[in-house]
Amino acid sequence: MTTFPLEAIPRHVLAIDIGGTKLAVGIVNARGELLDAARAPTEVEQGPDHVVEQLLGLCSVVMERSPVTVECAGVGCGGPLDTDRGIIQSPTNLPGWVDYPLVERLRARLNLPVFVENDANAAALAEHQFGAGQGIEHLVYLTISTGIGGGLILNGELYRGKHGNAGELGHLQVRYDGPPCSCGGRGCLEGYASGTNIARRAREVAARHPGSLLARLAPNLQHLTGETVLAALQAGDPVAGALWDETLEMLAAGVASIVHAFDPQRIVIGGGITNFGDHLFPPLRQRVAQRSMPALADGVDICPAAFAGNVGVLGAAAVALRAPLGVSR
Amino acid sequence: MTTFPLEAIPRHVLAIDIGGTKLAVGIVNARGELLDAARAPTEVEQGPDHVVEQLLGLCSVVMERSPVTVECAGVGCGGPLDTDRGIIQSPTNLPGWVDYPLVERLRARLNLPVFVENDANAAALAEHQFGAGQGIEHLVYLTISTGIGGGLILNGELYRGKHGNAGELGHLQVRYDGPPCSCGGRGCLEGYASGTNIARRAREVAARHPGSLLARLAPNLQHLTGETVLAALQAGDPVAGALWDETLEMLAAGVASIVHAFDPQRIVIGGGITNFGDHLFPPLRQRVAQRSMPALADGVDICPAAFAGNVGVLGAAAVALRAPLGVSR
Repeated sequence: MTTFPLEAIPRHVLAIDIGGTKLAVGIVNARGELLDAARAPTEVEQGPDHVVEQLLGLCSVVMERSPVTVECAGVGCGGPLDTDRGIIQSPTNLPGWVDYPLVERLRARLNLPVFVENDANAAALAEHQFGAGQGIEHLVYLTISTGIGGGLILNGELYRGKHGNAGELGHLQVRYDGPPCSCGGRGCLEGYASGTNIARRAREVAARHPGSLLARLAPNLQHLTGETVLAALQAGDPVAGALWDETLEMLAAGVASIVHAFDPQRIVIGGGITNFGDHLFPPLRQRVAQRSMPALADGVDICPAAFAGNVGVLGAAAVALRAPLGVSR
Repeated sequence: MTTFPLEAIPRHVLAIDIGGTKLAVGIVNARGELLDAARAPTEVEQGPDHVVEQLLGLCSVVMERSPVTVECAGVGCGGPLDTDRGIIQSPTNLPGWVDYPLVERLRARLNLPVFVENDANAAALAEHQFGAGQGIEHLVYLTISTGIGGGLILNGELYRGKHGNAGELGHLQVRYDGPPCSCGGRGCLEGYASGTNIARRAREVAARHPGSLLARLAPNLQHLTGETVLAALQAGDPVAGALWDETLEMLAAGVASIVHAFDPQRIVIGGGITNFGDHLFPPLRQRVAQRSMPALADGVDICPAAFAGNVGVLGAAAVALRAPLGVSR
């Protein structure tokens, strides 16, 4: 019997990243190289049908100028969503998208198989296939940006759970009696340590310490962001230092919970928080090791994601490339 | 080609449950029926070699009086342990068992393949194979007793993680700034809501409220246990009520974290805490639903384990029955 070398077939996929503020469409090869891309702001207020037209326009742009043919399309989009039925349920970043049959709409117009995953799962797949998680059997991807999300690669495969929404790691509840969260929980990790909430907590701290560098860097407190916190931290401001120390404890509690739950080999952290660099990774590693059972903490890597700006489109590509060759959907 | 009906072969296994206070050995069939059992107190202070001799004695008792032949043996034991190498690393309930080659010792003397899992994983397998989790693809088993442990069935299979210690759910950290735990963490679920720690918290509350029914039921505070809390709760004592309400919030934070992490279909709760019955399950279900994203909470069952006293030996049996027919180890 002659075996046909599947890996010799050049695979190219269409990658569609649907964000609440911007859209991106690219053509990506099986090595995760982004060959071409087109972007546009999401005209989210005009509703899902309009955004689909925007996406189809971007798809036309990249497909028309591409020398290669794409075999299928992958989509990354905010969850919750029903991946099996291809329905976007009600992402917080896409108001008005209620049970929207995205896959059906795109497939009908693109005339291609279309696969969808929530954006954190898609990013986890990208890091696993091309990035900081290559070859890792048990990988947790944690993205800390405006919100906090996660994606799980367990036994080498994306783990999706009953509804396809496993890995909502921003809603690990790190203080049982903490403040209410929009999910219905209390003391959620996201409510303390997302970019938005680090900035919120920093504004509260700055208001109480008007003489601090943190406060002086943002005379209008409404302009105080995560970047302000980082600048104050880099300058050695003790008020920013105490805020960051508390943030690290919150994150370490969440990451140690992840270690105890999943016994992962590697935890890849992506999103805007990675800009904190050495203020984040070395102390977080040390605190997670301290807060975890030695038998579990032993050898767990906590490392930065390989992809930043392009993670959305590379994630969408990874979703498409995960589909076996020749599958139609 | 003739297909041999594997499921028609009557399978019987030897099930060995190693607890810190008692040992149990049984013969179990493929339907999870315990056909015979022998038990003895664990003479733990005499060290692992002695306990192995105790176990071999119990094995002889049940095998000699059994009309059936066992095909292999399963062992459930406190973790951490290395299932692949069959080594017990350093369970807190078995002092002195440091890197003990249990599987090798048992195999040499029993002349049977021997398989080992930590006791919470074994119990999860028993509930999945014969108990409250039958047919469930994504099942979290949570045992709340002296300590809190867990076992994970994901995509229909036991999920073990990198070191085989996934599902250490007692060390989800539900208060990032809570009290230190023996694991190195802070604010661990086990530190608040295990049987031992419910009793500890109850003693503290009773000392502050000497006139309460809770305090009056245990004139010597050292005798106050989880059972005392339940009795006071059943009698409507408001002090016990407030303590239990706080305990439910701690548990709900942990279980909601489990929901967000794993997106499970069912959560089975075992261990002594199930004696709280209607004081536990209905309010916990309601609070977890409230503390979770609707897309994840939808349809999650939280139900009591099927097995109580025999869960150790049935778990060990499930470990053995999980091994494919004819595998030697």
